[in-house]
Amino acid sequence: MDETQLRKLMEQVREGSVDVDAALARLRHIPFEDLGFAKVDHHRALRHGMPEVIFGIGKTAEQVTTIALRLLDHAKNVLITRADPATADYVQTRVAGAEYFPASRAIRVWGDRTRHGKGKIAVVSAGTSDIPVAEEAQITAEVMGNEVEAIHDIGVAGIHRLMNNRERLSEARVIVVCAGMEGALPSVVGGLVSCPVIAVPTSIGYGASFQGLAALLGMLNSCASNVAVVNIDNGFGAGYVASLINRV
Amino acid sequence: MDETQLRKLMEQVREGSVDVDAALARLRHIPFEDLGFAKVDHHRALRHGMPEVIFGIGKTAEQVTTIALRLLDHAKNVLITRADPATADYVQTRVAGAEYFPASRAIRVWGDRTRHGKGKIAVVSAGTSDIPVAEEAQITAEVMGNEVEAIHDIGVAGIHRLMNNRERLSEARVIVVCAGMEGALPSVVGGLVSCPVIAVPTSIGYGASFQGLAALLGMLNSCASNVAVVNIDNGFGAGYVASLINRV
Amino acid sequence: MDETQLRKLMEQVREGSVDVDAALARLRHIPFEDLGFAKVDHHRALRHGMPEVIFGIGKTAEQVTTIALRLLDHAKNVLITRADPATADYVQTRVAGAEYFPASRAIRVWGDRTRHGKGKIAVVSAGTSDIPVAEEAQITAEVMGNEVEAIHDIGVAGIHRLMNNRERLSEARVIVVCAGMEGALPSVVGGLVSCPVIAVPTSIGYGASFQGLAALLGMLNSCASNVAVVNIDNGFGAGYVASLINRV
Amino acid sequence: MDETQLRKLMEQVREGSVDVDAALARLRHIPFEDLGFAKVDHHRALRHGMPEVIFGIGKTAEQVTTIALRLLDHAKNVLITRADPATADYVQTRVAGAEYFPASRAIRVWGDRTRHGKGKIAVVSAGTSDIPVAEEAQITAEVMGNEVEAIHDIGVAGIHRLMNNRERLSEARVIVVCAGMEGALPSVVGGLVSCPVIAVPTSIGYGASFQGLAALLGMLNSCASNVAVVNIDNGFGAGYVASLINRV
Amino acid sequence: MDETQLRKLMEQVREGSVDVDAALARLRHIPFEDLGFAKVDHHRALRHGMPEVIFGIGKTAEQVTTIALRLLDHAKNVLITRADPATADYVQTRVAGAEYFPASRAIRVWGDRTRHGKGKIAVVSAGTSDIPVAEEAQITAEVMGNEVEAIHDIGVAGIHRLMNNRERLSEARVIVVCAGMEGALPSVVGGLVSCPVIAVPTSIGYGASFQGLAALLGMLNSCASNVAVVNIDNGFGAGYVASLINRV
Amino acid sequence: MDETQLRKLMEQVREGSVDVDAALARLRHIPFEDLGFAKVDHHRALRHGMPEVIFGIGKTAEQVTTIALRLLDHAKNVLITRADPATADYVQTRVAGAEYFPASRAIRVWGDRTRHGKGKIAVVSAGTSDIPVAEEAQITAEVMGNEVEAIHDIGVAGIHRLMNNRERLSEARVIVVCAGMEGALPSVVGGLVSCPVIAVPTSIGYGASFQGLAALLGMLNSCASNVAVVNIDNGFGAGYVASLINRV
Amino acid sequence: MDETQLRKLMEQVREGSVDVDAALARLRHIPFEDLGFAKVDHHRALRHGMPEVIFGIGKTAEQVTTIALRLLDHAKNVLITRADPATADYVQTRVAGAEYFPASRAIRVWGDRTRHGKGKIAVVSAGTSDIPVAEEAQITAEVMGNEVEAIHDIGVAGIHRLMNNRERLSEARVIVVCAGMEGALPSVVGGLVSCPVIAVPTSIGYGASFQGLAALLGMLNSCASNVAVVNIDNGFGAGYVASLINRV
Amino acid sequence: MDETQLRKLMEQVREGSVDVDAALARLRHIPFEDLGFAKVDHHRALRHGMPEVIFGIGKTAEQVTTIALRLLDHAKNVLITRADPATADYVQTRVAGAEYFPASRAIRVWGDRTRHGKGKIAVVSAGTSDIPVAEEAQITAEVMGNEVEAIHDIGVAGIHRLMNNRERLSEARVIVVCAGMEGALPSVVGGLVSCPVIAVPTSIGYGASFQGLAALLGMLNSCASNVAVVNIDNGFGAGYVASLINRV
Repeated sequence: MDETQLRKLMEQVREGSVDVDAALARLRHIPFEDLGFAKVDHHRALRHGMPEVIFGIGKTAEQVTTIALRLLDHAKNVLITRADPATADYVQTRVAGAEYFPASRAIRVWGDRTRHGKGKIAVVSAGTSDIPVAEEAQITAEVMGNEVEAIHDIGVAGIHRLMNNRERLSEARVIVVCAGMEGALPSVVGGLVSCPVIAVPTSIGYGASFQGLAALLGMLNSCASNVAVVNIDNGFGAGYVASLINRV
Repeated sequence: MDETQLRKLMEQVREGSVDVDAALARLRHIPFEDLGFAKVDHHRALRHGMPEVIFGIGKTAEQVTTIALRLLDHAKNVLITRADPATADYVQTRVAGAEYFPASRAIRVWGDRTRHGKGKIAVVSAGTSDIPVAEEAQITAEVMGNEVEAIHDIGVAGIHRLMNNRERLSEARVIVVCAGMEGALPSVVGGLVSCPVIAVPTSIGYGASFQGLAALLGMLNSCASNVAVVNIDNGFGAGYVASLINRV
Repeated sequence: MDETQLRKLMEQVREGSVDVDAALARLRHIPFEDLGFAKVDHHRALRHGMPEVIFGIGKTAEQVTTIALRLLDHAKNVLITRADPATADYVQTRVAGAEYFPASRAIRVWGDRTRHGKGKIAVVSAGTSDIPVAEEAQITAEVMGNEVEAIHDIGVAGIHRLMNNRERLSEARVIVVCAGMEGALPSVVGGLVSCPVIAVPTSIGYGASFQGLAALLGMLNSCASNVAVVNIDNGFGAGYVASLINRV
Repeated sequence: MDETQLRKLMEQVREGSVDVDAALARLRHIPFEDLGFAKVDHHRALRHGMPEVIFGIGKTAEQVTTIALRLLDHAKNVLITRADPATADYVQTRVAGAEYFPASRAIRVWGDRTRHGKGKIAVVSAGTSDIPVAEEAQITAEVMGNEVEAIHDIGVAGIHRLMNNRERLSEARVIVVCAGMEGALPSVVGGLVSCPVIAVPTSIGYGASFQGLAALLGMLNSCASNVAVVNIDNGFGAGYVASLINRV
Repeated sequence: MDETQLRKLMEQVREGSVDVDAALARLRHIPFEDLGFAKVDHHRALRHGMPEVIFGIGKTAEQVTTIALRLLDHAKNVLITRADPATADYVQTRVAGAEYFPASRAIRVWGDRTRHGKGKIAVVSAGTSDIPVAEEAQITAEVMGNEVEAIHDIGVAGIHRLMNNRERLSEARVIVVCAGMEGALPSVVGGLVSCPVIAVPTSIGYGASFQGLAALLGMLNSCASNVAVVNIDNGFGAGYVASLINRV
Repeated sequence: MDETQLRKLMEQVREGSVDVDAALARLRHIPFEDLGFAKVDHHRALRHGMPEVIFGIGKTAEQVTTIALRLLDHAKNVLITRADPATADYVQTRVAGAEYFPASRAIRVWGDRTRHGKGKIAVVSAGTSDIPVAEEAQITAEVMGNEVEAIHDIGVAGIHRLMNNRERLSEARVIVVCAGMEGALPSVVGGLVSCPVIAVPTSIGYGASFQGLAALLGMLNSCASNVAVVNIDNGFGAGYVASLINRV
Repeated sequence: MDETQLRKLMEQVREGSVDVDAALARLRHIPFEDLGFAKVDHHRALRHGMPEVIFGIGKTAEQVTTIALRLLDHAKNVLITRADPATADYVQTRVAGAEYFPASRAIRVWGDRTRHGKGKIAVVSAGTSDIPVAEEAQITAEVMGNEVEAIHDIGVAGIHRLMNNRERLSEARVIVVCAGMEGALPSVVGGLVSCPVIAVPTSIGYGASFQGLAALLGMLNSCASNVAVVNIDNGFGAGYVASLINRV
Repeated sequence: MDETQLRKLMEQVREGSVDVDAALARLRHIPFEDLGFAKVDHHRALRHGMPEVIFGIGKTAEQVTTIALRLLDHAKNVLITRADPATADYVQTRVAGAEYFPASRAIRVWGDRTRHGKGKIAVVSAGTSDIPVAEEAQITAEVMGNEVEAIHDIGVAGIHRLMNNRERLSEARVIVVCAGMEGALPSVVGGLVSCPVIAVPTSIGYGASFQGLAALLGMLNSCASNVAVVNIDNGFGAGYVASLINRV
């Protein structure tokens, strides 16, 4: 309820066309609905102009399905992240149009495929093992209405592979870069392009990678100024931020 | 040198108007110039469409000045970050138009004030002590051609202060949020707006803040999906990324 | 044995009604009983005015049951925390009135439901995934004689959900707030109310949450002054401290 | 503005005694005032029932003084924490009644000495070196209207010193315990009493104390259930929470 | 080979009773034997005056058995630590007299029960869950020829349990203290006695215990001066060092 | 394509024997081939003079096999690291000559056994449990054309075992040292020899070894100047670097 | 007050030679004395059989001197650790016989030089830079009545220096080993001798030594079983524990 | 003393030309000399074939000078690392030919400039601020007899600067790469060349660089296989290892 509506409401109070109790009730009315275990917020799409997303971890297959169905009453696109195969099976038999991506463990209902992004989003991975995280970013960006160009396995130890994709990178309006181990790819990509780079450290590696900490620290300390970072393995967040950037 | 130029060069080789050695030389020619202690890259502005930036730490006042003057041969805007007062004095007596900002320790030469950003950038700080970092972001965004709205001291423990600035926040095309201690402000701001939020953890705090680590971890784990993070105290990086987003 | 009893004992010694050896024995007598693998302390209830609690981890189902039965010889309320389902089955078949809460893995025998708390305790969770920890706090506070108001899924990224519950929060005499990821909720709640807030970081999250470390550090650095913190996932401790506060 | 006031306001709108613009203005009116570098919130005292506190770090002596004076327009008690001696000098010459405590670096204006606490707060330190942190807790609790009993240097390696103070501890309604090094004192105190214990890790120690981390972790893992923890060296926070507990 | 033997050898060389090649061979001869996957050192018992110990982790049941049998050709006492039940089964069917302790996962062959220790070693645990580590210390100290007094579940939150065992503690010549969570027990015990205390942090705990790190740091920072520390869960090492101390 | 080839190409352009489009195409041609999920780089052998290596983690058995077969079209030696037994089975039934090493989980196709190394590489392990890492180093060094001398179980707590192998160590041209726990062996070996030492921390240990962190830090701080370090458990990397050193 | 005294007291009560109030008073009487800022415990010498020690950090020169003088009323030996030169000057002009050791910053009053230790204590340092910590250990052990043999600069990278001191090491009854950087020396010494080794990590090093953390972790993970560890730079603690061991 | 000498010695014993005591003495004779505060080892040059190095930190100017002069009795080249300007002044007035390098704080006496290295060593820095560390590596490699090519300021965010130096890199026989912040340069260089790369993380950076930890972790996790790592800021160690590699 913005100020215009508020003014209108109060004018109605003054005019008597709305009585005080009704006005109080409307002021108190906030558009979410309580399922008991989670507040479902149908207006989030309005607030964010974005589809609804369900974070799958720590929720049962039943909870995920219930929330998804409720959301689909009001929205055409729903994204469920981090769903294990059993949950995916359960959801797919109950939610029409639910597609499962085993690598990233995402479930997507993509009913409205309107293009919202103004340009192309490139989603880049440093190595084959980083693809699941990149896939999560790609699925997210697509369901939010973007054209996505995926470029895989162009890590910095074979810099010519990266240089060969320079042109494709320079065509993107925003770039998501997923890398584990030393996490150096965002710095190199960032130096090659003039658009924003969203860096996603992945937990790929072993030993002193400390489950993605090495890549995370590397990306936070990038000597390229056009790099911002999201959480380890957070392909969803990167795809989300990239989509917002591609809309503005 | 893009493909068109390369093709043209090779056609000149074929025609004989450029001989092989000259062609090799041109292929090898990259537009940077060597001052001995630093490669100065005049084309970075072209590549990034951005002014040149000098990271002041670890450089002498003489080095900073020399690089700045060389850059100003080709550019109208130069930003020097993390310059101590002595360096600022030295620079200001030798570089015309150099303005010093003691809180953020930035020096700015802002000769070309063309507006490049398409909308407004909001730069928000959680507390008074975070203002120096916010100032660095603001100065950066301004010198890169953006209108900046600064909103200070609206941390989450007094949520009404934040709510009172909701409208100003919602007018921004991208928001930079600087916060130390628990670093919670980006999550709350992120939930209120639908634009990208660039979060800057600051080193403000003590004890278990571990020089900004607490705020950094908090921001990386933000439950708001539209938040990306830069390094601790990296106001410059946040202003830079926000500027790129505001241009696309 | 307090000073009065000590004085009385010594007067008996002086009068000869208690001889020296008996007096020494009584001085040495401390009211706990040795089961071999654990000291069971029946007087703890007196000392703390609180029911007995068994920490379930690292104890076999048999050990848990034996201790519980022995305690129930002297007490009406027993709480067992962190009991896996197999232990719960074992206990429930042997201990009358034992109720199992699978989400929080708590077992509760709640024979004496006297209300001790002077006001209401609110137990708040930031997200659905934090509910198990909140449940442990709720169960603890209830068995210690408190009225508990549970408010779930009001995390900071949807601040209106929190604002809508402001009134319920302000009615509490002490508030337990459970949050994972960035752990920002206690700061915002703390700023809204004037009562003590006990913050519980949860291990919900991934990547740079480092199993709750991010939330823990965030809460320790809260810019709200009325926040104190317990261990990660320690719903029990929070419910316990809140109960003590509600009694004083 | 609570619901009653809101209802009253809207009835006035209906009756015409308040016009729509005035109503909107009142709804928008929030009682803080902008000094440019900090939002000063005069209603915080109302919201929290507490005096205003200025966190001294990162603020100039001028800023601290300006805020203090503005606050003293509306309040009788002001506490400034972490003020260095130069700031203290500056403040004391400009703010009437400002008392400086060099050990804890606190400045206190204590105009209204009404007793609000229902019982006594004990403030305990493990060693002589922990006294500055304990002093900050004591000063805070006193200015918030509590009787404070300070007990110093009763660390666990000389357990008889602690046992000798058992009676004084058991008279307190809430206890603040400050300890560095291994931070064991809150666990032992917590086991002796049945009231809430607020533990403050201090940065006293060297080597593997890691500036208070060892004590912090120890307190978070306390085997006494009645212990909650605040940030390293945060005597203020402990005194604040203890005061709230002592009021409820 | 000590200097006397070396002198004798060289005199034999001079006299011609040992020729140069034989002397070189003897100089090169060191009393260990190579099983291919491990050097078995029969003289270690001589060097250390101690039984041979096999660290079970990372070795197959076959390897453990082979080494144990080879050692038992020269020694009467063998201790195998960290053996899983399957390994224990395998060993017990092949090595005569092998006793298995499931809690600590130790296997002991204790053929020679000569008492070497000059006094009694007390092995103390803070809680029931710490008993497996304490058991490893006890078994080690026993097989090395010591009388061991085990005192369990006397953690600091119930200080009277500890005080009641004060006399037993003061009879020990050296004390091993095992504690998890905050690891405070060694400090309190250390303050009560005048003998050396070997502290063993255990991994018992959760959340901010970080698998024993909290207890480890606590013990390293003990304010009792008579405390030295071994690795987390290293009951064996503590029993070993305590045995050496009890022999000197 | 080096400068000579570039010059030749451009001379052909000038002469007209190669037209401009063909020249551009050749300039763009980079010798790798895209399998969809991984860029296979046949020229890496040329660039590095080394066999191709497949990092097994995060790849399916099918992916590993496909890449291996493709590589074997152009190379005689292929090394697959970190392959679980199921993958090994799958690969061995499809790739001729594939040998599996269960301890190190490496698969090796070793068709070309030319000796490239100029001297001998010693691969040393501190304890039996470190052998798998040492084996990975040995297999790597062998497939890269080196003679390897393996010396196991000569850890620093039995320094005579090390001293007895001094001669073998001094014959090596480069030494790989694998050690877990305190990771002290590289320092001692480094002090005994004058050749480069490549240190590999292993994750062997428990408690405060923190999965190899203790050994890693120890090796990085070696007081022997001839020690360089690779990642925890990275036997492959150590064998690879040692092979390069042995070739130069 | 031990049981004998307690019995005697109670017999006096029974006989009437001590009345009840006097008995209560004596039971309450604990032999320490309160200076206001520190409890001075004159019976600690009895309890520990040890001289009194003042930890200098965080105490003013005046406080140190006052405590020292009070202690010297009852004791002949006092040790002050971590005293800066100004404090030392102040103390030396006021406390007779106070000797200052600038390297370790210790002040020692050594009036009673009775030998209590049964054998010799060796204090070993790995490098010249570790000597201050070793000196603190030596001074402590001496003032506690031990003969100390100091052996410096025998770090593991020059293992022959250590081997040359083997005989001196084997003559010690207990050995203190101080080492920074990788902290490997205790493991090697531990393997050479059969007596207890007290390891002291020092903060000597840089970079990944993390102020002694690397050495600390190394020592905790020692593969020599006869090693126990004290805090970083805690020469005093090592000397203290070694002295206790040498007495038993 | 190698086996040949030992055989010869023992033959002399047999022949009677050396008597037993003299033989024992020679066996015991190890060529180092004791200055009291440090063992000076004149044979290290023989053992390592390397000049003597003095680690300057923690030594007084007098100590450094004394050791240097003593070493120069037997050697022509001496390197002193980490010497502050005052020490440098002191040394330069007393040691002939001592040259000081203020950036790296190294002092070098370079009397014997024989070339020992077989090829060229490239020393590379990512940014201007990394030059001091690179300089230490260069000075070390030079004094050890190597031709060094220094290439500065070619960090990965401007990849064309690196590509332009590709040829110079490929001419090196071993490369030292110094980089702070994200530490990505060694991976990219490692992918471009086929020789060993010694990576040196520098402490350049701020915030989440954690004094070089980010760069260190990045380098340890390098996806280029030819990279080995030394301690943070350890230019000396890198130059030393590179020199050894260049000699083999």
